[in-house]
Amino acid sequence: MGVRDVSKRILLGRKLRSSQLGETLLPKKIALPVFASDALSSVAYAPDEIFIMLSLAGVSAYTWSWKVGIAVAIIMTAVVASYRQTVHAYPSGGGDYEVASVNLGRTAGTTVASALLVDYVLTVAVSISSGAQYAAAALPFLSGHEPLAASAMVIILMSLNLRGIRESGTFFAVPTYLFMVAVLGMCGIGLLQLLTGNLPRVASADLTILPDPGFDGALTTMGLLILLARAFSSGCAALTGVEAISNGVPAFRKPKSRNAATTLLLLGLIAISMMMSVIVLAQQMGVRYVDPTEIDRLIQADGTPVPEGFRQDALMAQIAEGIFRDFPPGFYFVVVMTGLILVLAANTAFNGFPVLGSILAQDGFAPRALGSRGDRLAFSNGIVFLAAMAIVLILAFDAQPTRLIQLYIVGVFVSFNLSQLGMIRHWTRLLRSERDPAARRRMLRSRAINTVGLSLTAVVLVIILVTKFLEGAWITILAMGFFFALMRKIRRHYDSVAEELAAEETDKILPTRVHAIVLVSKLHKPTLRALAFAKATRPNVLEGVYVSSDARETAALLAAWEQRNFGVPLKVLHSPYRELVKPIVEYATEIRRANPRGVVAVYIPEYVVGRWWEQLLHNQTALRLKGRLLFAPGVMVISVPYQLRSSRIAKEKVMREGKRVQPGDLRRGRADEPSRR
Amino acid sequence: MGVRDVSKRILLGRKLRSSQLGETLLPKKIALPVFASDALSSVAYAPDEIFIMLSLAGVSAYTWSWKVGIAVAIIMTAVVASYRQTVHAYPSGGGDYEVASVNLGRTAGTTVASALLVDYVLTVAVSISSGAQYAAAALPFLSGHEPLAASAMVIILMSLNLRGIRESGTFFAVPTYLFMVAVLGMCGIGLLQLLTGNLPRVASADLTILPDPGFDGALTTMGLLILLARAFSSGCAALTGVEAISNGVPAFRKPKSRNAATTLLLLGLIAISMMMSVIVLAQQMGVRYVDPTEIDRLIQADGTPVPEGFRQDALMAQIAEGIFRDFPPGFYFVVVMTGLILVLAANTAFNGFPVLGSILAQDGFAPRALGSRGDRLAFSNGIVFLAAMAIVLILAFDAQPTRLIQLYIVGVFVSFNLSQLGMIRHWTRLLRSERDPAARRRMLRSRAINTVGLSLTAVVLVIILVTKFLEGAWITILAMGFFFALMRKIRRHYDSVAEELAAEETDKILPTRVHAIVLVSKLHKPTLRALAFAKATRPNVLEGVYVSSDARETAALLAAWEQRNFGVPLKVLHSPYRELVKPIVEYATEIRRANPRGVVAVYIPEYVVGRWWEQLLHNQTALRLKGRLLFAPGVMVISVPYQLRSSRIAKEKVMREGKRVQPGDLRRGRADEPSRR
Repeated sequence: MGVRDVSKRILLGRKLRSSQLGETLLPKKIALPVFASDALSSVAYAPDEIFIMLSLAGVSAYTWSWKVGIAVAIIMTAVVASYRQTVHAYPSGGGDYEVASVNLGRTAGTTVASALLVDYVLTVAVSISSGAQYAAAALPFLSGHEPLAASAMVIILMSLNLRGIRESGTFFAVPTYLFMVAVLGMCGIGLLQLLTGNLPRVASADLTILPDPGFDGALTTMGLLILLARAFSSGCAALTGVEAISNGVPAFRKPKSRNAATTLLLLGLIAISMMMSVIVLAQQMGVRYVDPTEIDRLIQADGTPVPEGFRQDALMAQIAEGIFRDFPPGFYFVVVMTGLILVLAANTAFNGFPVLGSILAQDGFAPRALGSRGDRLAFSNGIVFLAAMAIVLILAFDAQPTRLIQLYIVGVFVSFNLSQLGMIRHWTRLLRSERDPAARRRMLRSRAINTVGLSLTAVVLVIILVTKFLEGAWITILAMGFFFALMRKIRRHYDSVAEELAAEETDKILPTRVHAIVLVSKLHKPTLRALAFAKATRPNVLEGVYVSSDARETAALLAAWEQRNFGVPLKVLHSPYRELVKPIVEYATEIRRANPRGVVAVYIPEYVVGRWWEQLLHNQTALRLKGRLLFAPGVMVISVPYQLRSSRIAKEKVMREGKRVQPGDLRRGRADEPSRR
Repeated sequence: MGVRDVSKRILLGRKLRSSQLGETLLPKKIALPVFASDALSSVAYAPDEIFIMLSLAGVSAYTWSWKVGIAVAIIMTAVVASYRQTVHAYPSGGGDYEVASVNLGRTAGTTVASALLVDYVLTVAVSISSGAQYAAAALPFLSGHEPLAASAMVIILMSLNLRGIRESGTFFAVPTYLFMVAVLGMCGIGLLQLLTGNLPRVASADLTILPDPGFDGALTTMGLLILLARAFSSGCAALTGVEAISNGVPAFRKPKSRNAATTLLLLGLIAISMMMSVIVLAQQMGVRYVDPTEIDRLIQADGTPVPEGFRQDALMAQIAEGIFRDFPPGFYFVVVMTGLILVLAANTAFNGFPVLGSILAQDGFAPRALGSRGDRLAFSNGIVFLAAMAIVLILAFDAQPTRLIQLYIVGVFVSFNLSQLGMIRHWTRLLRSERDPAARRRMLRSRAINTVGLSLTAVVLVIILVTKFLEGAWITILAMGFFFALMRKIRRHYDSVAEELAAEETDKILPTRVHAIVLVSKLHKPTLRALAFAKATRPNVLEGVYVSSDARETAALLAAWEQRNFGVPLKVLHSPYRELVKPIVEYATEIRRANPRGVVAVYIPEYVVGRWWEQLLHNQTALRLKGRLLFAPGVMVISVPYQLRSSRIAKEKVMREGKRVQPGDLRRGRADEPSRR
């Protein structure tokens, strides 16, 4: 670190402290857990899906499990290699959405965005449902109440994120590394036992599986192909979350892209080792695992199906139970860490959503309020929406990961495909102008990687569409269509407004005169302040306006006005039925009509109070009046605030609010972690 | 009508038409039904209560019924006579509240207001519960579902009033006169039959009543007194609603007070005739009527109690059934008109509430927004509150008028007493200065009337408190206490604010300079308009302010700004994390700090759009910014609206809204009835 860097760091440190919310860039060892929880957590359910699909043809089909696993690992390798290109080419954090928008146009970009939105909902639903399964393995009393437990967990996560949970490196690092230790440790022990021939059998090893009627008897080649295709496409659930790093490049330390690419590689290696180890161990330990909705296909030694209410634990829970049969703490460690990582994975959706929302807002595809940090209300609505949709899915699909995964992977592979197609275009475009042979070689190599990636993921997408469409993928596609249409509609609205508002030369014409009116309800400090401010702007005409509904009060006010000798006339508008808004609006409209090239400035003295119930007692009429005056052309409305003593309370609340952390801050490279500065 | 009157009428007519909502004063024949429905409707339940209370001592006690009735009639006469004084002395429509406030001070006034608020809730609950009883008599399938039917009816009434139901003379006149025809007609026929000895017996005449254990055996004098006191205090429910006219004097044609007094007299005569006829007929026709919660005290001829689920119809329904046994349309006519008048009575509460709210608001006892016509939101909240409280009472007391009446009459008699005490003070005060013997005689007579009224109603109040306190009156007193405390708290808040805001001489000091900043997000029409308006006010300093979070966009904007050559500098505030509000607030605060005697004018270009979802897409940041700037001292916020084409939609909606009728319009002498102009 040179002297300049040191001084920069010192300055930066100062600046951060003063602004209370600083920028903290993540070293690789922290970035890995921050972005990996989603991808790594899929080892908790993806191998299970492979075994469920193969079980359709009975236990004998389990011999295919590791081959299917290798196929998934190959896809994962290709995808990781592709994204390593993306983080170099698009380091701004726009990820798949940016790649698709820039290279393939608005339609592709919006499609990717729709897929991502749907995937955020499904990440929550799948991760929490799977987490509920692990929770039930550790806490048997939860068994049978998974949908309820999962919904409760989503509500807890939502509340934490609404309150503004501080995502920090430590927050992720500790559980993620412990999870790795747990899973890799368990697998290491298991593989060692396998080599020494001491590998125990799991509890379900004594059962047999009744094949599904469709796969009964000897498998035809076609039947086998269909079976493997289904197992493979389900296993591809392991790839969900791999793209997260491409959205988080700005949060990495420099050299950002290189560090992100290295982290991605590490992530891929760990994910593949975990998945393959779990598959091999499960098969070797004699796991019997069927679709939980067809639990009666599990046959006991005496030839009868397992009893009603039989609990089929997740694959990793079964393996942990076998390996740690004599050491229960080991079992609990694996299960608890798995449950925790699944909750973290769900939480990433709550953090990724605002980031995506803000990018979409900048491009005019989402309400603009999402584009600026600090609009807690807009983000809160998003968080509540995300949680509500996830709960709907959890309850509709009974918190069964197997059924939710049918919906999940379509969206993921839609973005994989569009993003890689976009990358190929990207390199092709660059190659057109690039002359340096070394650079051209690198680009050609990158394009080759993306092409391989695209061809593989395209095949996978077709397989998924064919095998999953009727199983639930149609719901995802419908939902994507909805978001797509909504974003297009919002963008069209902004476009048409922009067109309507495009500036013309005539817009520079200045109003010829300013006629200012100050609303007077009483002669108190707020009115005097409004009057003083209005006077200070030296309008061409200045008058007070009072709406009178009581002759006595009016006379008293007029007398007081005279006595104070403001040098400003007071106009009295009569309103026998105590209507306040209408007379003022009509008067302002009248002034403007008499002088169409002038402008009317309406000064409204406003009370600033601190407590919510005080708000109810004040300013309601001012609020309504402003709402109405907005429709009058040539009228501007000036709020002259008068801060009452109690306004301190509200001010302090607003200040506190501004300092609160928002979901997504960490992955935008924005966090407040004094410990690591 | 003189020429001047005619021309005035013509002018007035024109003016009314142009303002769409005019003043229509009520002739006596229309005013009677408008204000009488509440008072007259009590004949539907008050006599029933007398019979229920007497039944405690068995059928033999029914011989006292007409004597109790006469006692109630005497009180009614005294009260009517008293209120005839009130309408002359306080013709402004403030009613009991005004009388108590002016003559007895703020505490008494607030007490009356609390009593009236509670009574509005109970008017709805009692009238609709009684109406449900009549509905069940006509439609037997409703029997047993009265609470549900009553709650549904309250919700319907609430919705109609939220939408803005047009209270009109006809609306009241037709059903009220038909109700009078029905009841007086029925009673006439019955009394004729009585004279000719053909009066039929009611269905329940064959039953006997098991006396309540407490009144078993021969009655002691004390026991009889207690019994009669309870019957009398329940019968006083007939007086509810009599005070309505004193709140409606402004709606009468001239001479307002005289017409109101005459109408009041008519109302008293009709109410007394109805009540006495019903009592006499009920007794002569052999009615057996017990508390519906003790229905098993009704004994059949064979000595067993009436079967489970026996429906005990209201008194008037039983009489109508007897008299019109051979002419069912007569029975249905009486029952339907009674049900209808009860609904109208409930509706008067929805109309009286806003009137009271607006008077309280003018005196600072209720949120000020209630004081100005047209704040639909505030009134809507009140209407929903009224309906919700009434439904709570209906459900809590099982829609049984008998139980609700225990709560009802306390409040009524609290206001009677305070108002009459106030009137005595009023006359005493006037007598002190009055020298004209004729006038003094009139005043002395009036004071005598009010004194008699007070002594009678004071006795009644004591009887009510003694006999009803534990039966439910404590709830009313508790609720009154709550409203009383709330109103005091609101008033104290307004007082302390007024004190904090009282103007001082120093408040006239003018700011020395105006530093105007125009927020620039893009260079479009709204920005140009804001810039033009700001320029027109010729501030000492004027600059555009742009919050930059993207270097490219900033450069483009700066170039466009240069090119347009506004002659206004553009200040760029950097905000790498897309925070918009904070930099602007900080900049404004900084300007002010540099020049504490100046004022900062922040011009915000605002979009005016028409549809609710367009609102979500625009102005959210402007809104937040304004909210934050209010806390900065020395800053004024100027909204410069730019009306987009779609704003027409919202404007039209606002205009329609302004024309809508509001509950209470009619009784404030404000209505739109072209047919009677």
